[in-house]
Amino acid sequence: MDVFTAISGRRSCRKFHPEAVSDAEIEKILEAGNWAPSPANQQPWEFIVITNTGIKERIFSESEVCKKKLFERSGWKWLEKFPLDFVKDAPVIIVVAGDPKKSGADMFLDEGAGRGYLEGCSAAVQNMMLAAHALGLGSLWFSLYEAGVVRQILSMDAGKEPVALLCIGKPVSTGATKRKDFREKTTYLR
Amino acid sequence: MDVFTAISGRRSCRKFHPEAVSDAEIEKILEAGNWAPSPANQQPWEFIVITNTGIKERIFSESEVCKKKLFERSGWKWLEKFPLDFVKDAPVIIVVAGDPKKSGADMFLDEGAGRGYLEGCSAAVQNMMLAAHALGLGSLWFSLYEAGVVRQILSMDAGKEPVALLCIGKPVSTGATKRKDFREKTTYLR
Repeated sequence: MDVFTAISGRRSCRKFHPEAVSDAEIEKILEAGNWAPSPANQQPWEFIVITNTGIKERIFSESEVCKKKLFERSGWKWLEKFPLDFVKDAPVIIVVAGDPKKSGADMFLDEGAGRGYLEGCSAAVQNMMLAAHALGLGSLWFSLYEAGVVRQILSMDAGKEPVALLCIGKPVSTGATKRKDFREKTTYLR
Repeated sequence: MDVFTAISGRRSCRKFHPEAVSDAEIEKILEAGNWAPSPANQQPWEFIVITNTGIKERIFSESEVCKKKLFERSGWKWLEKFPLDFVKDAPVIIVVAGDPKKSGADMFLDEGAGRGYLEGCSAAVQNMMLAAHALGLGSLWFSLYEAGVVRQILSMDAGKEPVALLCIGKPVSTGATKRKDFREKTTYLR
């Protein structure tokens, strides 16, 4: 698939077919993530590929707890009604785990120090979403969870950060969100 | 260009031809960035396109100051010798400016709250780098600067964050960095 077609055609998917994603497809997606740029090429990511039903269900039920808390704190009505079933229904969840120590020289900045790992991991997630789309798969960048809870469920090292939970599978339907015209958000300094 | 070819073939570029990047190319790159996913589709990015020589030179000279400071703080020898000429030599720098208020529900988390805008902006940068590569252009995700200094040079709103300075131009040469095998960084929970 052409790269511009992939970039403009990808949309978040929140309803997945139960059909398994093949190992070969998962590897293509991981490889795409792994080619992301990062500060000083430190490649601050690791991947945890979850197909285990029990683990997906624990993440789902903890996400429901988290959603309730976020609704109480924000008062945002859409949050209360936002179904999270895709977390347990997605055939695979890939956790992109970041290492905050691998942030490069930005760790020594005065402002916004130490977030290079997060930028690199986010670039990896975007590559993975584009790869999934090119393979005919849908994906969702899920982030409504407390890192500590996910760390515990997955027995992750305390020094690692679950930056994103990427839900992937064959899409039943995908979102149709639009974007504001980029020209309205661009300033030229010539 | 095929999306997998773009993802695996893109490398950071630190040496640019002086030849201008066309407006049409810049627009293709901005459009690619603008299609990134973001929390609650809040599209937390704006773009500042800098082709003005004086402004690029101010950013360059402030980056040299920043680099010196980071070297003193880190003691990392490579930093001292790292040439930053690409900042003034790149025909165009696109600043991806983020709005921290547009982080979605993650603002209400206990841990890592309010960084959704950074993740969305990083996904936008990655789209832009892939688009540049597909157009035969090189790019560099530059981040060795103090946000406050860049804000001042560009008269940016205090509430906006210069997440990345993306240097773009026709490449004289590009990096050849490799990646660790993703298999060594992957755990399967089946």
